[in-house]
Amino acid sequence: MPSILSRTTPTINTAHRSSLAPLVVPERLLLGPGPSNADPVVVAAMGHQPIGHLDPAYLTMMDEVQTLLRYAWQTSNELTYPVPGTGSAAMEATLANVVEPGDRVLVGVMGYFGHRLVDMAKRYGGDVRAIHQSWGQVFSLEALRAALIEHRPAVLALVHAETSTGARQPLEGVGALCREFDCLLIVDTVTSLGGVPIFLDEWQVDLAYSCSQKGLSCSPGVSPFTLGARAEEKLARRKTPVANWYLDANLLRKYWGSDRVYHHTAPVNLTYGLREALRLLAEEGLEARWQRHQSTAELLWAGLADLGLSCHVEEEFRLPTLTTVRVPAGVDAKAIARMLLTEHNIEIGGGLGDLAGQVWRVGLMGANSHPDRVETLLTALGQVLHSNH
Amino acid sequence: MPSILSRTTPTINTAHRSSLAPLVVPERLLLGPGPSNADPVVVAAMGHQPIGHLDPAYLTMMDEVQTLLRYAWQTSNELTYPVPGTGSAAMEATLANVVEPGDRVLVGVMGYFGHRLVDMAKRYGGDVRAIHQSWGQVFSLEALRAALIEHRPAVLALVHAETSTGARQPLEGVGALCREFDCLLIVDTVTSLGGVPIFLDEWQVDLAYSCSQKGLSCSPGVSPFTLGARAEEKLARRKTPVANWYLDANLLRKYWGSDRVYHHTAPVNLTYGLREALRLLAEEGLEARWQRHQSTAELLWAGLADLGLSCHVEEEFRLPTLTTVRVPAGVDAKAIARMLLTEHNIEIGGGLGDLAGQVWRVGLMGANSHPDRVETLLTALGQVLHSNH
Repeated sequence: MPSILSRTTPTINTAHRSSLAPLVVPERLLLGPGPSNADPVVVAAMGHQPIGHLDPAYLTMMDEVQTLLRYAWQTSNELTYPVPGTGSAAMEATLANVVEPGDRVLVGVMGYFGHRLVDMAKRYGGDVRAIHQSWGQVFSLEALRAALIEHRPAVLALVHAETSTGARQPLEGVGALCREFDCLLIVDTVTSLGGVPIFLDEWQVDLAYSCSQKGLSCSPGVSPFTLGARAEEKLARRKTPVANWYLDANLLRKYWGSDRVYHHTAPVNLTYGLREALRLLAEEGLEARWQRHQSTAELLWAGLADLGLSCHVEEEFRLPTLTTVRVPAGVDAKAIARMLLTEHNIEIGGGLGDLAGQVWRVGLMGANSHPDRVETLLTALGQVLHSNH
Repeated sequence: MPSILSRTTPTINTAHRSSLAPLVVPERLLLGPGPSNADPVVVAAMGHQPIGHLDPAYLTMMDEVQTLLRYAWQTSNELTYPVPGTGSAAMEATLANVVEPGDRVLVGVMGYFGHRLVDMAKRYGGDVRAIHQSWGQVFSLEALRAALIEHRPAVLALVHAETSTGARQPLEGVGALCREFDCLLIVDTVTSLGGVPIFLDEWQVDLAYSCSQKGLSCSPGVSPFTLGARAEEKLARRKTPVANWYLDANLLRKYWGSDRVYHHTAPVNLTYGLREALRLLAEEGLEARWQRHQSTAELLWAGLADLGLSCHVEEEFRLPTLTTVRVPAGVDAKAIARMLLTEHNIEIGGGLGDLAGQVWRVGLMGANSHPDRVETLLTALGQVLHSNH
């Protein structure tokens, strides 16, 4: 048989042909800001062969995922589906669809992800205004009203659960306020979905996004997105096409709707995982799920106090999913985290942005929201803090 | 313990709380345009718990993936990494980074994915021109030269392997031509990477993209992207920011480079799979890999002829990875595909766009490029064609 290369001139360059050993994945307890460990049922589901995105079995799975996402978020929005990317893609999907060049966008910045919203909104041509709160604090309804009066935005974007600070932004009344000012409300629920009470429809949230690898206890790579009736109207009124093809809800609605018009090749194995993660959530029930996250977090907070450590966010606004722990004076935050990883196979996170070096970030999310994990962490943390002195 | 809901007014809506049975995934032989079956080693790798994207073990994996992608594509481009999305996201990444509003973009349209490039390039403000070739044909170097003379574009986008037609666009000489006209060359290698000879650097290709679920035999959801020196210069000269935050190579280079500046939470389990898929590719070697795809495809073509079926694309330009088979007069293309799936668990694809109803699309890619699979398909196809008469 003639060689495949007889017709082509170049010779194969082997400079980058590394010879690797088969993959070895270390076993970690993931107690940082995410990813968290996936539920073992989810991991097992991802270890199946892919099937086609037009397979009848896959189409059924798509419907199941949409329905259960609506339950998880407490919304009846038709346009509720996972975006085939990470949480940042879902974040971008909200802005890309409803921000047209020149639209005024107001962002509540109380941490790292508020800044990211500002950056993204500018790229879509938004006339972006920001209000700021110090990292670990949240906005009052009065402050939001004053900002809406001052800026009269077309879109307000808020972070429900700031992953960089551990603060929970109360949302009661914000949706009604936005309607009063004829403004759409976008909410980041990346670190709240599946772990913290959310009532999207009751709260009159117009668009929201999340991720798979935190409260849902799936692996990262597919990210919940939802868009309600008022946002659909704005999308329909657009004078310019959505600048982002991959995230255009006009195309994705035809793919997720009964037409099933081809858009992208679905990340099949992640859909397996997400379907199982959502099935387990529905089995447990939202109230039990939220209660479990709250109780487990309270165990952590009590244990941290016993170790002489304090939390950065006051309890009323403290997320049960993600706790920022103040680094005591004289302690090397990075060294402690490194020792937890190398000596105990436990991952926790460091501070970001304004809180760099000042806090550790401890996540207790999804399957990891469990008293056993709290005990494991507190024991290890006590040891490394002691040996570091 | 007080209920978590005592502080919140709404009651939980259980309308969408479906009760599902645990996931059951049917076993399919995926011989359509993709996804193909993943290599069993890849599937096993994906069934591990996630680790953090800052874990030393994960950072090593990132380097390994980059190096092996360079080998697979035969490029030394520093900016070579998988985009955290499907092949369409990687396609959009090429255009988003180098097309500025007003830039003239020329697209060679010889199938469905050429049209997609046109749509995307317009969304980034490109002054888009298209040249057309009938579906199943390819462009000659002379035709490309004439189009460059006529349109003087800043960017030329071509599809190396048209998944909708099964045609292979020869690329020898196209890169040199683009340099003569001071134009960047973008190439779609979605259905060629890992199965068809590609020499990106020798061919002077400036940007390319691909997917994971075809020639690489991984699962879909992460997609190779590469950008060379001339494209980097154009990116550096931009007057406007890249409109797409998620795919901005300026941000992604800091994440994939030694700085590891946080960008997105990596799709860890897909990286496990891609790392293993690329390791297996390097182990086999490109020449053996390409030869295997060619030989297996020739077996298919001979077998189809024995069944009285003919191929849509002439042999010189026929892809070994994807074959378009003419549907004989009087045969119901959809019914045959449905019977293959329901009676034999074999998936093949139907025709898209101009070829809807006229062809079937048969993929023999990655682990599925094997004589056993050809025999299985030909036997089943013979049976369903016979029973359908």
